[in-house]
Amino acid sequence: MPKQRDGSDGPRTSARPAQNSAPAAGRMRSSSKTIRIVPLGGVGEVGKNATAVECGTDLLMVDAGVKFPEEEQSGIDLVIPDVSYVRERIDRMRGIMLTHGHEDHIGALPFILPQLAHDGWRVPLYGSRLTLGMVEAKLRERRALEYATFHPVEPGETITVGQIAVEFIPVAHSIPGSFMLGLHTSAGLVVFTGDFKLDVTADTLFQTDQNRLRELGDQGVLALLSDCVRIERQGRTPPETLVFEAINHLMQEAKGRVILTTFASNIPRLERAIHMAHAMGRQSAIVGRSMDQNMTVAAELGYITLPPGSVVSADEANHLPDNKVVLLTTGSQGEPTSALARIASGSHPFIQLHPGDTVVLSAEPVPGNTETVSRTIDNLFRRGAIVIYKDLNPHVHVSGHASREELRDVIRLLRPRYLAPVHGEYRHQWLYSLVAQEEGYTADKVLIAELGDVMEFSQDQAGKVGHVPAGAVLVDGLTVGNVSREVLRDRQHLAADGVVVVTLVVDRHSGELVTEPEITARGVIGGETDGFILESIDALKRMLQSKYRGKPEYGDLVARVKESVGSFIWQKTHLRPLIIPGIVEI
Amino acid sequence: MPKQRDGSDGPRTSARPAQNSAPAAGRMRSSSKTIRIVPLGGVGEVGKNATAVECGTDLLMVDAGVKFPEEEQSGIDLVIPDVSYVRERIDRMRGIMLTHGHEDHIGALPFILPQLAHDGWRVPLYGSRLTLGMVEAKLRERRALEYATFHPVEPGETITVGQIAVEFIPVAHSIPGSFMLGLHTSAGLVVFTGDFKLDVTADTLFQTDQNRLRELGDQGVLALLSDCVRIERQGRTPPETLVFEAINHLMQEAKGRVILTTFASNIPRLERAIHMAHAMGRQSAIVGRSMDQNMTVAAELGYITLPPGSVVSADEANHLPDNKVVLLTTGSQGEPTSALARIASGSHPFIQLHPGDTVVLSAEPVPGNTETVSRTIDNLFRRGAIVIYKDLNPHVHVSGHASREELRDVIRLLRPRYLAPVHGEYRHQWLYSLVAQEEGYTADKVLIAELGDVMEFSQDQAGKVGHVPAGAVLVDGLTVGNVSREVLRDRQHLAADGVVVVTLVVDRHSGELVTEPEITARGVIGGETDGFILESIDALKRMLQSKYRGKPEYGDLVARVKESVGSFIWQKTHLRPLIIPGIVEI
Repeated sequence: MPKQRDGSDGPRTSARPAQNSAPAAGRMRSSSKTIRIVPLGGVGEVGKNATAVECGTDLLMVDAGVKFPEEEQSGIDLVIPDVSYVRERIDRMRGIMLTHGHEDHIGALPFILPQLAHDGWRVPLYGSRLTLGMVEAKLRERRALEYATFHPVEPGETITVGQIAVEFIPVAHSIPGSFMLGLHTSAGLVVFTGDFKLDVTADTLFQTDQNRLRELGDQGVLALLSDCVRIERQGRTPPETLVFEAINHLMQEAKGRVILTTFASNIPRLERAIHMAHAMGRQSAIVGRSMDQNMTVAAELGYITLPPGSVVSADEANHLPDNKVVLLTTGSQGEPTSALARIASGSHPFIQLHPGDTVVLSAEPVPGNTETVSRTIDNLFRRGAIVIYKDLNPHVHVSGHASREELRDVIRLLRPRYLAPVHGEYRHQWLYSLVAQEEGYTADKVLIAELGDVMEFSQDQAGKVGHVPAGAVLVDGLTVGNVSREVLRDRQHLAADGVVVVTLVVDRHSGELVTEPEITARGVIGGETDGFILESIDALKRMLQSKYRGKPEYGDLVARVKESVGSFIWQKTHLRPLIIPGIVEI
Repeated sequence: MPKQRDGSDGPRTSARPAQNSAPAAGRMRSSSKTIRIVPLGGVGEVGKNATAVECGTDLLMVDAGVKFPEEEQSGIDLVIPDVSYVRERIDRMRGIMLTHGHEDHIGALPFILPQLAHDGWRVPLYGSRLTLGMVEAKLRERRALEYATFHPVEPGETITVGQIAVEFIPVAHSIPGSFMLGLHTSAGLVVFTGDFKLDVTADTLFQTDQNRLRELGDQGVLALLSDCVRIERQGRTPPETLVFEAINHLMQEAKGRVILTTFASNIPRLERAIHMAHAMGRQSAIVGRSMDQNMTVAAELGYITLPPGSVVSADEANHLPDNKVVLLTTGSQGEPTSALARIASGSHPFIQLHPGDTVVLSAEPVPGNTETVSRTIDNLFRRGAIVIYKDLNPHVHVSGHASREELRDVIRLLRPRYLAPVHGEYRHQWLYSLVAQEEGYTADKVLIAELGDVMEFSQDQAGKVGHVPAGAVLVDGLTVGNVSREVLRDRQHLAADGVVVVTLVVDRHSGELVTEPEITARGVIGGETDGFILESIDALKRMLQSKYRGKPEYGDLVARVKESVGSFIWQKTHLRPLIIPGIVEI
């Protein structure tokens, strides 16, 4: 029987009245016999996971992650979920349940907490000590600590918020302190898998509690909201022990230093590497701010234990013989400013690569990073390193996500009445629905939701009952949201062909040019001193003389200048720079 | 014994004297006992393959391909090799040998032929009829036909240009009419593999002639310049028959239409698909301009034979029952304007997806296209198609390139004195050198060249003897080359944060503002009507009033305007748009 504890710090009922006037919201009144689930992120996309869950008068969120911008989102720093659905129901909001500490599950908190906290009410955050430790560091950095309260939960513990009992079921994932969530409500039990795998060889502390899943299945599960991102992979994700063995072997073979790169949050793998190095008489140094920070938090919170003297500073490591050193570095995605990318390019301030160093990339590139990772590998080879990566040795990394058969196992353990694949792109959701059908579910039992779809589950039925605003909020510098399509379109236009600024001073009465037009070109081939740019001024002057005898209308003048200069440049170069006329009437 | 024929159309010796004054070129005098090879593309990168080969007084090029721009090459259309090394030796230039018709081997011809042809001398092009057919279409489109002469060669044929006999050895690749080249010179025999695989199950017409390779090995090979791009893959590339069987099976299973997508140049696979469809009573339609064009050229030149009535127009296919139709489409890389991407998004002018259509992606995304391909697959599933792709069924596509053991096989067949891996990134070259070492070669027998390295081979020695200008020439609209780093940097800056134009009219004597400053913002959040932009004008005016009593110096004024507006915007938004002052003195 899991531990039980009361939640606290729920919002005071005197909170600011919610802006609950949207007609869609009015139509969809919540009952205690139904549970309503709205994906605000993570479905039809990978990243910015966030879900609203509502039952009776209680609403909670699961996760609040970020996504990195797509190529056409020029200049955008981060993409976060739109939480206006939650903000409009803020009087019912009981808190945010965090499944684990990865960026795509917690990264939006610094931006959305200020949108949700109000009148002294802070948003209660529930999660493992490690997750909350990582969130705390993040909020401190972004000056958003004041918007949250922290409620650490232990594996297996159940906390109650409003009328909902939330059970935190431990799961194996690539970061410790990861949970599946069991939401025990008056409408029934809903299980959110979060990110997980069924790696029976994982450290017992971090194993997925399959017995508890079976118990829950026996008690009856209303709905399973399952990760599905790795459903394209047949079979089961290989065990983490495979990676440990591969790293151990490579460390034993290495004659020089070993430089091991993995995700900065893969704390168990880093811990194990330090232990293995220690056993071989090597000392380890951590190089890279995020990895250092994560390991410090994990050690402080008791998630890892390291042999005394097993970790040294990078400076100390530089004074040890090469065969006594392991460097643990960031940069597994080839990020240009990461430790590994700098070591590879020879620009790291205090780590130089030695010929004969063995570099192990214990990771695989996420889509979009293939080329930066390849550049890093090329550079490492160029400097004489022995480089081992997944294409050469598939055992140096395994995923933290369940493959197809594990996803099927969870369906069999829980035997839910309804299923809804989340945390995946559309094809993953679709393929998951096919697996569910193989398991005997009819198509109507599997809901494929897109962002903002309102799913409603009760013992009798399940379906999509509405749609609410949800989607991408773009963060650009200090600005959150408010980035229009037009701004992005202009940026892409500027990126493609540059900009030409034409400055004209015209007499406000006669419309005649007072001085020569000035022209400035940036991002345009040849620049403003090139012949065609200068010629375009002559063309412009001819146009102005022929068409603008008498006072021109201002907007018309702007359009004519754009047309004249733009079409001249197109003719000469087949480029379409953005033309900005700066016209002053005096 | 291979067929022999004399080349013709060599440059007249009365040609314009070559600009042969570069000191590097002077130092490196070519002898008939050495052969000099300069990679102008394709090494340390994938794409824009081009190599200069020089022996005695003869120079030739192998291939002239394009590469697609990298992300930081904003707005660039294509990247082509720098052929100034060849241009400076144009009096020795005997022609361009084309291994096959892929873009990364022929795509630069429309741009470089005009750089090489002169005084009525046209550049002789040698290659298979199919390759030349594709080149001709390309040159016609770009109005560059007048710069070339065409010299088709048959499989196994040897042509002589100057003192070099060039043997065209047939190889299996993913396009017909592909050749390995044997350059028989007074210095020895050099073999260029081009792109190939050793697929013994391929149509006999297109098999790699391993017997001939063994004969050449027996005669003695000086140097092997080998493809290495797929050396990370262990074993051998699976046979094309695997793909035929998979497609055949999927066609048989399909209850509705079959939509098959592959590379537009994979003519044998398309031909086979049409035959298989025909055998099942299905008619095929080709949808997509490039695929249609390639199949037309291949049929005209006799590379393929199709059963009468097996191919219909897309319009005719639209009037057939679904189970009688196969559509062959472009879009295997998810290109947004391709037939498949449009069908997937519902925007194709005359093909609508029917629920139950089976879509087979007989390809895999090249790095950089993963996300566009995923979007296409998601959209196809959304519209109810059954989608089969390589992640789900690995047999729907095999590569056209040799894997590690095939590359080793060629080393064993040819037993060259020296080796140089080409057509690969640095890590591929490096891994190839390790395979060569496993085959008993010492490291000094394997040259790893970077772009522009001059490799020299003779019976006694091999080495890198110099370096010449080589690299990327950027094509942007009508402009070839002449794209400075500054232009690209400005474009990236514009893409990230947009542009703010500040127009000032100042009195040329007093330096006082004649009118209010005007400000225009594009690609900037909020645009020019936003508060912070208007406030920045006030800050600017205060700055001008306090610092510019008396006539300011123009350059100083420009700098101060940039600084004032830029730092104001940074403070308010943490964005750094490009600030362009348009200052007119009257």
